[in-house]
Amino acid sequence: MGTQTAVVYAEPGRAEVREVPLPSLDVRPAPGVLPRRCDHGVIIRTLATGVCGSDQHTLHGPGAAPGMVLGHELTGIVTEVGRDVERVSVGDVCSVPFNVACGRCANCRSGLTSHCLSVNPARPGGTYGMGEGFGGWCGLQAEFALVPYADFNLYVLPDADQAGERLLDVALLGDVLPTGYHAALNARVRPGSTVYIAGAGPVGLACAAACRLLGAAAVLIGDFNTERLAHARTVGFEPVDLSRGDLADAVAEITGRRHVDAGIDCVGASASGLDGEGTPPAAAFNDVVSVVGPGGAVAVPGVYPGGGAPLGVRLGGIWSKALTVTSGATPARRYQDELARAVLLGGFDAGKIVGATAVPLAQAGDAYARFAAGAGRKFILVP
Amino acid sequence: MGTQTAVVYAEPGRAEVREVPLPSLDVRPAPGVLPRRCDHGVIIRTLATGVCGSDQHTLHGPGAAPGMVLGHELTGIVTEVGRDVERVSVGDVCSVPFNVACGRCANCRSGLTSHCLSVNPARPGGTYGMGEGFGGWCGLQAEFALVPYADFNLYVLPDADQAGERLLDVALLGDVLPTGYHAALNARVRPGSTVYIAGAGPVGLACAAACRLLGAAAVLIGDFNTERLAHARTVGFEPVDLSRGDLADAVAEITGRRHVDAGIDCVGASASGLDGEGTPPAAAFNDVVSVVGPGGAVAVPGVYPGGGAPLGVRLGGIWSKALTVTSGATPARRYQDELARAVLLGGFDAGKIVGATAVPLAQAGDAYARFAAGAGRKFILVP
Amino acid sequence: MGTQTAVVYAEPGRAEVREVPLPSLDVRPAPGVLPRRCDHGVIIRTLATGVCGSDQHTLHGPGAAPGMVLGHELTGIVTEVGRDVERVSVGDVCSVPFNVACGRCANCRSGLTSHCLSVNPARPGGTYGMGEGFGGWCGLQAEFALVPYADFNLYVLPDADQAGERLLDVALLGDVLPTGYHAALNARVRPGSTVYIAGAGPVGLACAAACRLLGAAAVLIGDFNTERLAHARTVGFEPVDLSRGDLADAVAEITGRRHVDAGIDCVGASASGLDGEGTPPAAAFNDVVSVVGPGGAVAVPGVYPGGGAPLGVRLGGIWSKALTVTSGATPARRYQDELARAVLLGGFDAGKIVGATAVPLAQAGDAYARFAAGAGRKFILVP
Amino acid sequence: MGTQTAVVYAEPGRAEVREVPLPSLDVRPAPGVLPRRCDHGVIIRTLATGVCGSDQHTLHGPGAAPGMVLGHELTGIVTEVGRDVERVSVGDVCSVPFNVACGRCANCRSGLTSHCLSVNPARPGGTYGMGEGFGGWCGLQAEFALVPYADFNLYVLPDADQAGERLLDVALLGDVLPTGYHAALNARVRPGSTVYIAGAGPVGLACAAACRLLGAAAVLIGDFNTERLAHARTVGFEPVDLSRGDLADAVAEITGRRHVDAGIDCVGASASGLDGEGTPPAAAFNDVVSVVGPGGAVAVPGVYPGGGAPLGVRLGGIWSKALTVTSGATPARRYQDELARAVLLGGFDAGKIVGATAVPLAQAGDAYARFAAGAGRKFILVP
Repeated sequence: MGTQTAVVYAEPGRAEVREVPLPSLDVRPAPGVLPRRCDHGVIIRTLATGVCGSDQHTLHGPGAAPGMVLGHELTGIVTEVGRDVERVSVGDVCSVPFNVACGRCANCRSGLTSHCLSVNPARPGGTYGMGEGFGGWCGLQAEFALVPYADFNLYVLPDADQAGERLLDVALLGDVLPTGYHAALNARVRPGSTVYIAGAGPVGLACAAACRLLGAAAVLIGDFNTERLAHARTVGFEPVDLSRGDLADAVAEITGRRHVDAGIDCVGASASGLDGEGTPPAAAFNDVVSVVGPGGAVAVPGVYPGGGAPLGVRLGGIWSKALTVTSGATPARRYQDELARAVLLGGFDAGKIVGATAVPLAQAGDAYARFAAGAGRKFILVP
Repeated sequence: MGTQTAVVYAEPGRAEVREVPLPSLDVRPAPGVLPRRCDHGVIIRTLATGVCGSDQHTLHGPGAAPGMVLGHELTGIVTEVGRDVERVSVGDVCSVPFNVACGRCANCRSGLTSHCLSVNPARPGGTYGMGEGFGGWCGLQAEFALVPYADFNLYVLPDADQAGERLLDVALLGDVLPTGYHAALNARVRPGSTVYIAGAGPVGLACAAACRLLGAAAVLIGDFNTERLAHARTVGFEPVDLSRGDLADAVAEITGRRHVDAGIDCVGASASGLDGEGTPPAAAFNDVVSVVGPGGAVAVPGVYPGGGAPLGVRLGGIWSKALTVTSGATPARRYQDELARAVLLGGFDAGKIVGATAVPLAQAGDAYARFAAGAGRKFILVP
Repeated sequence: MGTQTAVVYAEPGRAEVREVPLPSLDVRPAPGVLPRRCDHGVIIRTLATGVCGSDQHTLHGPGAAPGMVLGHELTGIVTEVGRDVERVSVGDVCSVPFNVACGRCANCRSGLTSHCLSVNPARPGGTYGMGEGFGGWCGLQAEFALVPYADFNLYVLPDADQAGERLLDVALLGDVLPTGYHAALNARVRPGSTVYIAGAGPVGLACAAACRLLGAAAVLIGDFNTERLAHARTVGFEPVDLSRGDLADAVAEITGRRHVDAGIDCVGASASGLDGEGTPPAAAFNDVVSVVGPGGAVAVPGVYPGGGAPLGVRLGGIWSKALTVTSGATPARRYQDELARAVLLGGFDAGKIVGATAVPLAQAGDAYARFAAGAGRKFILVP
Repeated sequence: MGTQTAVVYAEPGRAEVREVPLPSLDVRPAPGVLPRRCDHGVIIRTLATGVCGSDQHTLHGPGAAPGMVLGHELTGIVTEVGRDVERVSVGDVCSVPFNVACGRCANCRSGLTSHCLSVNPARPGGTYGMGEGFGGWCGLQAEFALVPYADFNLYVLPDADQAGERLLDVALLGDVLPTGYHAALNARVRPGSTVYIAGAGPVGLACAAACRLLGAAAVLIGDFNTERLAHARTVGFEPVDLSRGDLADAVAEITGRRHVDAGIDCVGASASGLDGEGTPPAAAFNDVVSVVGPGGAVAVPGVYPGGGAPLGVRLGGIWSKALTVTSGATPARRYQDELARAVLLGGFDAGKIVGATAVPLAQAGDAYARFAAGAGRKFILVP
């Protein structure tokens, strides 16, 4: 069996590029859940594979094993199909949703592919490249990758040529764009909405892009990182420098009211992107809650790990304004068809908004480091 | 009591400008429903008052009495408030929703202001300027007008100066823009949707504008009127000349599929806008149904009169594709706040899209005639 | 290969019991769509298989070929599983939804299993036992049956013993109960709703049962068939004899208002169940429309064939009351989990409500004849 | 001006019956918000006025002034109507929603009467009988009461005689039944749902009643109070004694799965009803979160005061299961029409379920004391 270039976990905090075995339909990709040949899977040759904020969590978290292939964002060309695959063919250009999902269990059938009951013995839901706690599925930052349950999981792009021309937009369809869109929907963003987003990284920008697509009248993005704030302004949003003054004052100046209709926490438990020095972990969440008006909604794409300790939350602020809070990983497959049409038919320029930037796969280590340092960019690795 | 200039019904098919009495809170504006002083009403001085396709129905329909003031679209400045009015003040610039509504009955409380139970003894729902069948409320195409239940009905613009600068956008907030938006929502238009709209008049264009605001990926507008089709193309939509070829072919060429996700019939029973010569009345509706895909939705802002005879409808086409059809007058008040924010805060250029064009009130007769002749314009009368 | 007993189409209007070949995973069950071994399918031994109103359509329609096995309602025990089946095991007791669906296409992924894009070359959506126009899938009124895409399609009952004890309730989970529930949801039935249902056959009663489950305050069922009306009264609904007096008067007497919140047409194009003599085909639909109040909703589970001619519909009545109409076949799989919990955990006695009655499979011909004659019963064939 | 009997705040923790002035349309009922005659109000003679758990908060909270009339639940007969009242007449039997609301502001128009912008200068939303922080509106536990904005606020019962016969059900329409129903809707309870409710007091029971009305398959209620648990069992729910064993085990034993679809926290910040000794304030909330399954919803009718300190919340548990949490006071007016129909037309026996018990108004002090001591009853004061 041959080898290929891939990005692997080297040691806590560091990714590096190595040679790893090629994937195969004959090899059990996730021993705990696929104890046999993967007849429902396909092999995909990578066109683009993104670097995500949660890859940083994996680098620093407890679940990674040295040599493990990283990554869960993939666009590529199908090179081999299993014998039970009916709707995907060799040569198809596909976007892979970051959630591994079977399409057959109760959760998948109801659209909750983020919590598939088949692909992770540890708990509902599986993800590529995050270790055993997420099902042990091999990561996607590699030249080739295996995708199981391909008929259900893959979004086949209608036109391969157009996909190539719009690769930096299409590359976002596997994770960050569905994640931003899911958050905007959960925050009930609609035409005329005013929105506050905590965090100007790629997820925050993808949320902002989705808010624009949904007709929001004003989108404010708060951060401490001036490079990211500057980018947010460049692509048409209202930056709020959190190191200066009161959030409600900033909201009032921009929107004419001291509250917004919708809030989105893209920071999560790791508030380090906003303030590295001992801020209580729910700081960003409480901030968001503080500026959403009565009857409003808050979405939380920012990660709060399942086993985490209790955090200090102003439940009274949520209660007195009768807010609705929705959190959790996005079932990305649910949104790919409509977002792809928005991009490919409607001209939605998501790549520009999130600052998508192509980087050779071989330079992945550098991209990881720049992302960790707070670059105002979404890095897309290209073999 | 003094007089003012107003547009009145003169004879079947013809409107003219005349002097009529000034409105007053002391005079019963609709004798059947307001048997006393209108303490909950206000007097408004007109800044802009639109000409609507349904004014043409009134001119030709059975309900108009000679000398009746026409019109139901008004933006203006409050000049007098009744003693039970609490939330509106003299000097406020307001948009008046076309439905007369009390805000107190079961229908108003549930948001169905189009079917208010208080303002029309004949049946649920009242409208200004359409005669006794709609409650007998005096029309709004005049220098001054009375608006009852002002606290509930009026949308007060947040900034009078800005309202003046955006008058041709703001003037659409009373009817055509909420109507287009309601239709787009009923047709379940969302990011990535493909939409077919029958009729390129102002309502069709307002629907198209709303579809864009909601993130639609492709908006097709069908008509026979080449001036209107040309305007639709100018403002960024896909015109479909219905005199040429097959509708599904046009859909396929533009979207890559032979069906759309959503359809909107802006023509209604009077298909004369599309084809004056004996087309069966449900022709536009059946056309729309024919191109909407399985599980899709159809909205019908085009008017089908309540007492009309049965029309030939392809129910089998609706059934076999499991479509949802929603029709009826729009409860305009429901949408004014969010649409106003989209216009005033978000820069939504609705006036340009629908071809809003200011015309002196004194030249209303001409505007009516040009509209009836199929002009690609939305006329806004300005005193 | 052995044989088994099954109900087949004999000649127009007549079903009979015959010996037919046993099903096999090796045999192409629907030549047009499954050109190879059915590795994703299972063989099921029948415990109960229902007779449905649409079987009558098949008997009289153009699509049936002599000898074709009929039926699309099945509860049974899995006796063999294909290679690609992961979530269903031999011995599982399962309910089969009447729609054949792949679980992998865009429609299935969005829950529209009634319009699966994989299982019928003729058009979206397949059904067992209805001939080539529905995909050519072998019917289920037999001792054994093949079900494709078993992981996705089958609802596995949590407790085989309990399933046996509640067989006449469980047997309804494949079609009539989801169909009634889908209609009640589409008619927006909720706590406190008043509902009018046209047609007191099994589908009408299943709608009524679903309305009760959803908290409806009053459920009226109209029919001309006195046996069916008597049954409706026995199980707690309000019968309306359509041969006597005005429908709105009956509504007013029972509910105190002259309209209902929701209406359901369970009659469809074939109004013969209500009135066999020349009634215009949309009579039941227009009746329903006439008694639903402003802003209300109408559901149409009754079948209007796709290729049918235009019918006379009072579109003006729909428009003037701003109704929403939803029609089409039910995606049954969507509702099986929750309805099964309502039956098995919540004690929902659907079988009693619809008059479910067990009949030996060998006497199917007699059950068909009694059903065609208007019996107030839902026949469940038991091998 | 005459006097009347009323329940007033006497000192911290104690209510007593006193003589207070009769209400009048000429007297400013809430000086901060109604600086003039209450022309839109009515005077109501009390038939029934409930004692609520939040009256206990008022007795113990900082906002009460000695002599202040308590109570916010009222059913009564209109004895006088203001000049601006059009839809309510002397002699009408009405239910008063506990939220004071104008029906004219943006929040009221969108159905958020719990956060009316007109009736409380301190913050959005007003309530009767809770002091200046809630708008300073006089309480309703008295022989007569003033209700402002009567056309909008009052639910007029369709039949006064029937209202009298069902008084212990009808008396719940002002607060506890809408509150339970709002919570059940926010927890997305639907047919077949399994639900866990924390707290077996009147609000918990009203939630359970609403869950039954919505078709829930199994409703579990957890508490430490054995009298309340016994009542819950008597009226058909599944009691869970929280002093014994693991909650998930109890869920599994009853439902067959270790999680529920929906959870409702009826305890709030004051967990003293469950455990008086130093339990961290978010204990009940965290309990509820712990047993709701992936993609589920949590409602929080239990009160968390707006100015409260941060509480320890397991955000990670919410995030990892992608839960939706909705909290806050109920906009009661939204639900009265449908709940009244469920009670009066549909026979929904809410009074029996929540243990509604009539007590003479003169014995209100005793009812307050028994309620505070944890009685398994909902006390309804009757003059």
